Amino acid sequence: MPRPDPRTARKAPDGTLPVPLTGVVPPLCTPLTPEGGVDSAALRALVRRLLNAGVHALFVLGSSGEAAYLSDAQRRTVVRVVTEDVDGRVPVLAGAIDMTTARVLDHARAAAEAGVDALVVTAPFYTRTHPAEIARHFRRVREGVPLPVFAYDIPVAVHTKLAAATVLELAEDGTLAGLKDSSGDEASLRRLLAELRGRGLLDRFSVLTGSELTVDGALLAGVHGVVPGLGNVDPEGYLRLYEHARAGRWTEAAAEQDRLAALFSITDAGPEETMGRNSSAIGAFKAALHLLGVIDCPATAAPQTPLDAAAVQRVRALLERAGLK
Amino acid sequence: MPRPDPRTARKAPDGTLPVPLTGVVPPLCTPLTPEGGVDSAALRALVRRLLNAGVHALFVLGSSGEAAYLSDAQRRTVVRVVTEDVDGRVPVLAGAIDMTTARVLDHARAAAEAGVDALVVTAPFYTRTHPAEIARHFRRVREGVPLPVFAYDIPVAVHTKLAAATVLELAEDGTLAGLKDSSGDEASLRRLLAELRGRGLLDRFSVLTGSELTVDGALLAGVHGVVPGLGNVDPEGYLRLYEHARAGRWTEAAAEQDRLAALFSITDAGPEETMGRNSSAIGAFKAALHLLGVIDCPATAAPQTPLDAAAVQRVRALLERAGLK
Amino acid sequence: MPRPDPRTARKAPDGTLPVPLTGVVPPLCTPLTPEGGVDSAALRALVRRLLNAGVHALFVLGSSGEAAYLSDAQRRTVVRVVTEDVDGRVPVLAGAIDMTTARVLDHARAAAEAGVDALVVTAPFYTRTHPAEIARHFRRVREGVPLPVFAYDIPVAVHTKLAAATVLELAEDGTLAGLKDSSGDEASLRRLLAELRGRGLLDRFSVLTGSELTVDGALLAGVHGVVPGLGNVDPEGYLRLYEHARAGRWTEAAAEQDRLAALFSITDAGPEETMGRNSSAIGAFKAALHLLGVIDCPATAAPQTPLDAAAVQRVRALLERAGLK
Amino acid sequence: MPRPDPRTARKAPDGTLPVPLTGVVPPLCTPLTPEGGVDSAALRALVRRLLNAGVHALFVLGSSGEAAYLSDAQRRTVVRVVTEDVDGRVPVLAGAIDMTTARVLDHARAAAEAGVDALVVTAPFYTRTHPAEIARHFRRVREGVPLPVFAYDIPVAVHTKLAAATVLELAEDGTLAGLKDSSGDEASLRRLLAELRGRGLLDRFSVLTGSELTVDGALLAGVHGVVPGLGNVDPEGYLRLYEHARAGRWTEAAAEQDRLAALFSITDAGPEETMGRNSSAIGAFKAALHLLGVIDCPATAAPQTPLDAAAVQRVRALLERAGLK
Repeated sequence: MPRPDPRTARKAPDGTLPVPLTGVVPPLCTPLTPEGGVDSAALRALVRRLLNAGVHALFVLGSSGEAAYLSDAQRRTVVRVVTEDVDGRVPVLAGAIDMTTARVLDHARAAAEAGVDALVVTAPFYTRTHPAEIARHFRRVREGVPLPVFAYDIPVAVHTKLAAATVLELAEDGTLAGLKDSSGDEASLRRLLAELRGRGLLDRFSVLTGSELTVDGALLAGVHGVVPGLGNVDPEGYLRLYEHARAGRWTEAAAEQDRLAALFSITDAGPEETMGRNSSAIGAFKAALHLLGVIDCPATAAPQTPLDAAAVQRVRALLERAGLK
Repeated sequence: MPRPDPRTARKAPDGTLPVPLTGVVPPLCTPLTPEGGVDSAALRALVRRLLNAGVHALFVLGSSGEAAYLSDAQRRTVVRVVTEDVDGRVPVLAGAIDMTTARVLDHARAAAEAGVDALVVTAPFYTRTHPAEIARHFRRVREGVPLPVFAYDIPVAVHTKLAAATVLELAEDGTLAGLKDSSGDEASLRRLLAELRGRGLLDRFSVLTGSELTVDGALLAGVHGVVPGLGNVDPEGYLRLYEHARAGRWTEAAAEQDRLAALFSITDAGPEETMGRNSSAIGAFKAALHLLGVIDCPATAAPQTPLDAAAVQRVRALLERAGLK
Repeated sequence: MPRPDPRTARKAPDGTLPVPLTGVVPPLCTPLTPEGGVDSAALRALVRRLLNAGVHALFVLGSSGEAAYLSDAQRRTVVRVVTEDVDGRVPVLAGAIDMTTARVLDHARAAAEAGVDALVVTAPFYTRTHPAEIARHFRRVREGVPLPVFAYDIPVAVHTKLAAATVLELAEDGTLAGLKDSSGDEASLRRLLAELRGRGLLDRFSVLTGSELTVDGALLAGVHGVVPGLGNVDPEGYLRLYEHARAGRWTEAAAEQDRLAALFSITDAGPEETMGRNSSAIGAFKAALHLLGVIDCPATAAPQTPLDAAAVQRVRALLERAGLK
Repeated sequence: MPRPDPRTARKAPDGTLPVPLTGVVPPLCTPLTPEGGVDSAALRALVRRLLNAGVHALFVLGSSGEAAYLSDAQRRTVVRVVTEDVDGRVPVLAGAIDMTTARVLDHARAAAEAGVDALVVTAPFYTRTHPAEIARHFRRVREGVPLPVFAYDIPVAVHTKLAAATVLELAEDGTLAGLKDSSGDEASLRRLLAELRGRGLLDRFSVLTGSELTVDGALLAGVHGVVPGLGNVDPEGYLRLYEHARAGRWTEAAAEQDRLAALFSITDAGPEETMGRNSSAIGAFKAALHLLGVIDCPATAAPQTPLDAAAVQRVRALLERAGLK
């Protein structure tokens, strides 16, 4: 049985999203000013750097983009700046992250008006829900906005895992265009891929892993692409990994993944005594972008604890060890 | 050692919130039209009924109010309708429920402009956070809005429990005016009350339990009041329970609590096979309000599964058994 | 509706367990020698102290007894020493704590041969189980040993909570003689009590709370007794609390509970940086018994970290503040 | 950077365990008689079948072996029968599964006396523990028995995940000979492998994955071997997968893994309405072994619900689809 033959995901001339979407799709960080506003110039610089590296698409307003921390006005700024800047060169996916259907639809409509190419939506959170309600949620969102919808499976945030049966049902009936799997549950992902393949859905349903440490194995298992937060810092690494995998150079892909796994230790730079793991990870991505000269200010949004000087030093050392500085 | 002597919580002439807030503070349901909009007329009818019963304050946009399901526009409608209708007769608390600081502040400012008397705010959710970040979150919110802030401890939604040390620190320094404890962790509540009492804070820091099944024990332990979702359906019951407790008639308080515990079984009316526990509980409150003639339409917000006819029948039977119909 | 009229639980002349079992039933600590063996002399001293205080029954091999840490030989020693020493003066309940049915039965038979009066058994743990399997587990255990069986609901250890439906089914059919509820879920307990009362089962099914901080509220809600780990240290306090409650002196009961809640802070004496919360709590109980002169050596079983000197000092200060030293 | 060059794990002439242990190490099911006793004849038949297939070692008394369900006497029987039958042809690892140190040591000594080659030990469970206590636990076990110890990381059973820092510390100081990783957390596994490689420990510390659905990716990431429950049913499949990986035929390895992932669906054969997921999985392995003629009776241990006829039919169909029947 041959592995899926991933087509390039660069945007087609008619402006539609590639089906299936493939490749390296970094979830953009959102650079902030020292006062906490969106730093549009830095955001454009980050977009430029990623496009120059050759990424296949961009994802704004995900976890790496601090979507949970940005006000509605800030979210709209991010979407506007990025869609304008990208100007159709690659597809832009936007997170529409909120607790339930009506709220998600408000974000989704704003993103659609700004011209994004697809939406990324989680199951309801904060409330206790049910698989039937989760399916209805995705259907309502899809019906309410003329854009492809990717399900975002991120139990660490949502506190429920999307059931395979739900994903399959919504893939079959066309509600979902794909899945961004940030569950970290590679065994379930393998079973889901087997089911999708068995039903002939892998040609039109795109499976992207958000687990940046198991990309070689995930591509070997058949995913179409990767959405790596660490790809903000080292897009070339993920592109090399992806190309090795496409070419069947699995040992080289694994070696590249090992290098990126070592670099990923920057996400633990912040001390557990004073800051959350989210703040440490996003703070490290931004500190790295700052050290690499991409953004002017490494600030994260309130109420996150900023990295201290020792943590920044750890980030610098790991960047150097990974050959990035 | 005497029990705290709860003062009446009815609003003082100068419009300030009683300190500490005491009594029965129902978390208002949000009646919806069949099309899903806020039913302002039904909302006013519900307010009228609760004020006629003699409740001490009202809480809008909590879990019973489906805050997680309402759009920003709907939330603003709820706050406006209720503050106008109440017109200062009792304090109105409003939930400002969102993932992190900037987003909470946007809700908080809107509620403050509409004239609510206090805000109810959870720890950050969706993101992985840290006690120091949670404390900073509450401080930023308090600094950003000229209103008392109650912490809302609801681990079933937020997926972290507020640490006692955080609550004590923010009670001492005046950041928090009180706590709405929906953690269901009565042992931790007891220890927190002991600490607050030992530091002399119970005179100015209000502890309200959101656990509607243990109100007698919580009042015996020293809480100031209760925020019972079931109080939408049977406010008189909770008022009787509260008055029994104030008067030291603990056996009568327990008997009333037992009656309410039996009535609380309406929250399980919806079948687990087809709907979430949130949908079942809110659906049951609304079905009961509909059966009691308070609201016109028992609809819950998308994507919740509605109660089926058999479930409504179960609600009706339990209302009758509780002597309400 | 009157509260249950608790009968005294002191053992009937014919040696059978009182039905329902009521009162204060301390879960005995297991004193160890410096080398880690069971210190039988100290165990007898502890039994003597508790009987002198007037406790209504004893529970060996529970969490406070470090059942999870004792070898089978040590468990047998504990049961033998205590049953011999008690010699029928009060009922002795024994934990039969293990992963599944066959293993529990081995412990249960050993305890039965040593002459205990009842067994305390959890749902299966370590494996992923199902309510139907949990019910079958209790039935098999009950069929295999000629002793009353109490269900031990302790989700912090077992990682599932006993479903009310399971408890009710096994109470109705006589499989279970009672419940030791260490779930900390007072709301569920209230609903369970309401169901048991409605079915007329509270006369023969004994509900004991293991939550030592909410005993006043639990007795007000109708439980028959309490199994307080802290009762090793201050049995007189729990006996006063229980007698106040029986006599309807609820304010006095609450005041006693407040005093005990303050004393309970000894369980946090050990630093979180170096030891688990289990080790801190059991270590504190044993340190207190040592400081009070009841046992010779405060050692806990491997691999628990022992309390350091500063922690022991905190225990001493809290004992003094509670009037015990 | 080359992938680890896995040496064959077949047992060295001097009877010592290969260092590192590599290859396919099935966790033996424990066949039972209809009355619930260990079926020694069937156990020998299963051993014979696996040795004939060419597996590199055997693991008894793991989760697939229903260790949690077997009495001490039954555990001893299993170890005795298998060590006798294997007679040194391949290494035999034995689980010593119990709550804490003293109890684990009793099992460990019994297994050592029976002649096993290594022990597999989890962190303490049932009690709330601490990383320092977990490390002390492994050290005490290692000191108490003259056998290599593998840490068994199985959070679904133990409810804590082994910290990477703990594993690294115990690998460095020689306490642990290896890790059986059944955490399903492939990202953490990747980071651990990177750390072990960086410290030069992969030559003497054996990492085995227990996640039977991601073996291709895990081998690509550098693990030494696999402990697949499904390997009871299809050992040849796992051996082919392993050999493909050793030879760098990654696409073929992935195809074999896909076939095994489809077969793994037998573990869902049992209906969720009536049985736990453990019972369904073990029941399916045993039903498959029965259908394949390896064992006489597919019974699982009490209190597990047996598979019903429809479930067995599903197992049969999946075996046929996988080409096994």
